[in-house]
Amino acid sequence: MAGRKVLIVYAHQEPNSFNGSLKTVAVEELSKQGCSVTVSDLYAMQFEPRATRNDIVGCLHNSNEFNYAVEMTEAYKKGCLSNDLIEEQKKVQEADLLIFQFPLYWFSMPAIMKGWMDRVLVQGFAHDFPNCYDSGLLKNKLAMFSFTTGGTEEMYAKGSMSGDIRYILWPMQHGIMHFCGVKVLEPHICFAPEYVSEGKRKEMLTAWAQRLKTLWKEEPINCTPEWYFN
Amino acid sequence: MAGRKVLIVYAHQEPNSFNGSLKTVAVEELSKQGCSVTVSDLYAMQFEPRATRNDIVGCLHNSNEFNYAVEMTEAYKKGCLSNDLIEEQKKVQEADLLIFQFPLYWFSMPAIMKGWMDRVLVQGFAHDFPNCYDSGLLKNKLAMFSFTTGGTEEMYAKGSMSGDIRYILWPMQHGIMHFCGVKVLEPHICFAPEYVSEGKRKEMLTAWAQRLKTLWKEEPINCTPEWYFN
Repeated sequence: MAGRKVLIVYAHQEPNSFNGSLKTVAVEELSKQGCSVTVSDLYAMQFEPRATRNDIVGCLHNSNEFNYAVEMTEAYKKGCLSNDLIEEQKKVQEADLLIFQFPLYWFSMPAIMKGWMDRVLVQGFAHDFPNCYDSGLLKNKLAMFSFTTGGTEEMYAKGSMSGDIRYILWPMQHGIMHFCGVKVLEPHICFAPEYVSEGKRKEMLTAWAQRLKTLWKEEPINCTPEWYFN
Repeated sequence: MAGRKVLIVYAHQEPNSFNGSLKTVAVEELSKQGCSVTVSDLYAMQFEPRATRNDIVGCLHNSNEFNYAVEMTEAYKKGCLSNDLIEEQKKVQEADLLIFQFPLYWFSMPAIMKGWMDRVLVQGFAHDFPNCYDSGLLKNKLAMFSFTTGGTEEMYAKGSMSGDIRYILWPMQHGIMHFCGVKVLEPHICFAPEYVSEGKRKEMLTAWAQRLKTLWKEEPINCTPEWYFN
């Protein structure tokens, strides 16, 4: 929808990868709709995934015993977060929709994207107990996890060795996004693009563009254990 | 047990933290038993979590389109992984038991530890389809996830907003360790150490030392969906 703002947090090393194509399709399709699209290209930015003292500019709240969560909360209040985090928080603040685009690494997101979650979603900015889950500080935003897998769809079916793909989504969708109040759209999963034909890969890209056309009409999922484990 | 080798992969910024104490207790107790204990102190090592081209020394297999998994598999075969990865793989190869010690960040491990998983557990070294799960290449090893939480035990009970803590363990225990053939011991979870008394924290450390005394007699869990979701 025209005027809506989208942040794509993107984690792939190779612009010519299938993930790169999915990202490009999203930028093109959403721009065509009149959305304003920003991309955080984590590898290109050499985004820092490690949660360290460097995330706080100036003096620590307690330099005798470094407590990352406490220091980050204090630094956020005082405007003393490192510049890269202030930049990312601005993008999140402005966005109506966050799209996370990545290849599944070990039943989860790549470390560089986990680092984005660990460092950007600071207490006071994204949540602040009891403002979590439905009253999280990022409510009124939407998020979607769009990713590729190495394994086929059959490998991620209920009863298979790797279990239902939804089991994997719990920490990401519920534990992170829902915790911050963000409403979660159905994930977009491209299974095993490396092991299908060029034609099939093109179909996957077309299907992604197609989904994005009606994205703003979608209802968020009901982000409770039932969605994941029943 | 005397002679056994243990690798502790440890992710906390502060030596005086409760996680630091848990790590120290483990080193002391296991050394007392005659085990040989190695610690990978990820923050102290400034361990690189990002999966990039720098992980491969010399020429790429396909420099036109960088595919991390493919390049790492080839580099492993040719002995062309970066030195930090060769070092970590040696430690894993020698270990009978891997202990992962960390504070829970966003329903998972901190990015620096996820980066260890992403970069160290290379195909050909840790798994090599169809050698995964029970026939993974690291079979005959044990692993344990030992971590602290911000939330209390009640917050991670079945039916609570944050759901059963076991939901969180699926990607880590099953998706990573079991996938590589490693047998998983019951996790060791210290709930909300920051919000309990000093006396209670000391009890937690004693309980950890106590558990380690009989660790080698423990049976691994039955790492199937039933353990996690029933």
